[in-house]
Amino acid sequence: MTLYPQRLARFAELLAATGLDAAALNPGPTLTYLTGLHFHLMERPVALVVAPGKEPAIILPELEMAKLAEISYPIHAVSYGENPETWPQIFRGALHSLDLFGRTIGVEPRALRVLELRLLEYGAPGAHIVSADSALTNLRIRKDAAEIAKMRQAVKIAQDALEATLPLIKIGMSEQELANELVIQLLRHGSQPEMPFSPIVSGGPTSANPHASPGERKIQAGDLLLFDWGAAYDGYISDLTRTFAVGEIDAKFQEIHKIVQEANAAGRAAGKPGLPCAVVDKAAREVIEKSGYGPYFTHRTGHGIGMEGHEEPYMRGDNMKLLEPGMCYTVEPGIYLPNEGGVRIEDNLVVTETGSESLSDMPREIRVVG
Amino acid sequence: MTLYPQRLARFAELLAATGLDAAALNPGPTLTYLTGLHFHLMERPVALVVAPGKEPAIILPELEMAKLAEISYPIHAVSYGENPETWPQIFRGALHSLDLFGRTIGVEPRALRVLELRLLEYGAPGAHIVSADSALTNLRIRKDAAEIAKMRQAVKIAQDALEATLPLIKIGMSEQELANELVIQLLRHGSQPEMPFSPIVSGGPTSANPHASPGERKIQAGDLLLFDWGAAYDGYISDLTRTFAVGEIDAKFQEIHKIVQEANAAGRAAGKPGLPCAVVDKAAREVIEKSGYGPYFTHRTGHGIGMEGHEEPYMRGDNMKLLEPGMCYTVEPGIYLPNEGGVRIEDNLVVTETGSESLSDMPREIRVVG
Repeated sequence: MTLYPQRLARFAELLAATGLDAAALNPGPTLTYLTGLHFHLMERPVALVVAPGKEPAIILPELEMAKLAEISYPIHAVSYGENPETWPQIFRGALHSLDLFGRTIGVEPRALRVLELRLLEYGAPGAHIVSADSALTNLRIRKDAAEIAKMRQAVKIAQDALEATLPLIKIGMSEQELANELVIQLLRHGSQPEMPFSPIVSGGPTSANPHASPGERKIQAGDLLLFDWGAAYDGYISDLTRTFAVGEIDAKFQEIHKIVQEANAAGRAAGKPGLPCAVVDKAAREVIEKSGYGPYFTHRTGHGIGMEGHEEPYMRGDNMKLLEPGMCYTVEPGIYLPNEGGVRIEDNLVVTETGSESLSDMPREIRVVG
Repeated sequence: MTLYPQRLARFAELLAATGLDAAALNPGPTLTYLTGLHFHLMERPVALVVAPGKEPAIILPELEMAKLAEISYPIHAVSYGENPETWPQIFRGALHSLDLFGRTIGVEPRALRVLELRLLEYGAPGAHIVSADSALTNLRIRKDAAEIAKMRQAVKIAQDALEATLPLIKIGMSEQELANELVIQLLRHGSQPEMPFSPIVSGGPTSANPHASPGERKIQAGDLLLFDWGAAYDGYISDLTRTFAVGEIDAKFQEIHKIVQEANAAGRAAGKPGLPCAVVDKAAREVIEKSGYGPYFTHRTGHGIGMEGHEEPYMRGDNMKLLEPGMCYTVEPGIYLPNEGGVRIEDNLVVTETGSESLSDMPREIRVVG
């Protein structure tokens, strides 16, 4: 198993190239990507410290030490006991032995907590603790064939699970009941229990809130019914959306669904190596703006996807980052009519050598359920 | 609905009493407890700012604004668009209007990320950003009758779900398959899909790792089989552990199970108002130490429980915090024999006016499965 030492070495190179003396990471996808180790975020801090030219170190609670038996490459482990008052000195000892006093240490701003930050600040007096985003941006952004195969499987599990859920939809069921059924089907079809996010199931006026949580509202005839859901497979995820008609729906709902479907197709067709992310957003947005519904498409067209639901690269109209083979992202335009209903259609794509390919292929045209 | 204004007012009092001019909270249980609002942690920051004597403010993405329609009390909303470069000025405007430049602002060290911290630092020049733990410790620690009723329901769902899973256990099933079945049963019995944590199902030697993730290992005759699982009900959770025998097991495993069961009973009996948390740890630990297995009980006896799996108060031998009616915590002693097997038995308790009551009552003696 040379995968993790290779990834750690590549990360160390990226750190050196971006002027960082080290990076300190708490539990999350990047730590798992680099080490193969899984830790939960909890009140006991865990920190992986990577410094170019040195053996990687991990600071962790004694009761997590058994996890290190899983790995077969060199890592320096520093463990601590249950009393939080001892932790600052443990961090100081570990960071001193890595010669990090007064150095520049990068962190993940969207992951590292004040808990770990303060321990790093105490542990490495005089250190400058800065964002490691410029090194991190390029670490996981291009997926290799093995990673794409896992994402493909995560998409397949999600699609199969929704297809198995659709026949169960009955008028009078609540959004929450439907969400529970969908989660059950995701597990039955092989998703890991740690899913990327809880499914959104939103019906009727609730579908006009892009980030609604499933509630007690019961499905009614005439509703737009939106599912935004995903599966996890071996650490990689999918994130899809389809919108259905519960029985006969208003002509306006039919119209916005058709426009969103066209916007989704335009967004899916737009990405290719060498073009900026912005083209994907523009292609989808243009369709909606031309239809006159521009003000009702209130979010960006997509986000990167891989080990996380939201990661680089982001499909925003102002993002000039260039697409490269292996980058993966969502295309998810929507139209949301407040107090009436909303439509979103979301696929997961990978950039190929010549264009882009949708990993998801579930029918996108409106289907009647219930 | 005066619940949330009351909680916000009480938090403001606690802030003032601990010398803080304000607190800034990101999405998580405390924000939900105070406002009734649910947000996910994502790359777009959300911050609730509470300052004594001022209307609470919330900084959030435009696409989350619809959630504010759910609430019926005054809150000042400041929303921002998709371009992250605009966020620092949005934060500065909001914090300026709250007169927080140069003030002391408390945060949750185990929740707030560097993402939000840097925006607060930029947004309130000269501010001191410190831990709000001394105010937060007392905010959610005593549960009221409505909260305890929800925890009781979360315990019932978890117990019923495991009872429904036990008959499905067959020799040759993997830990992961069993974990998936248990999650399905949790959902069928009414757990929210956002569970407190993924169940731990660990068999044989893996059960000696207190924080094992369910893996591909198949259940074998002679295994100790440990389930650490919980449900979520209306934002409140349960966190239980039981250990089973797969067919006939070694006499040593029988022995350590018996000792852990006695330690669990001693820990459950020990808590009452006015006694320090330490007594709970000591009561359970003493049983294990007297048996000679002290070195194999490698963690504290328990942790607080409520909206989170790990919260105040912690049942550690050095914790002199006094128990009060309404506090809720776990009692979860264990013995872990490396490379052989481990036993843990965990219950959820609430402190009453005169002692403590276990919310969980599933049989604790060893049962044979498989």
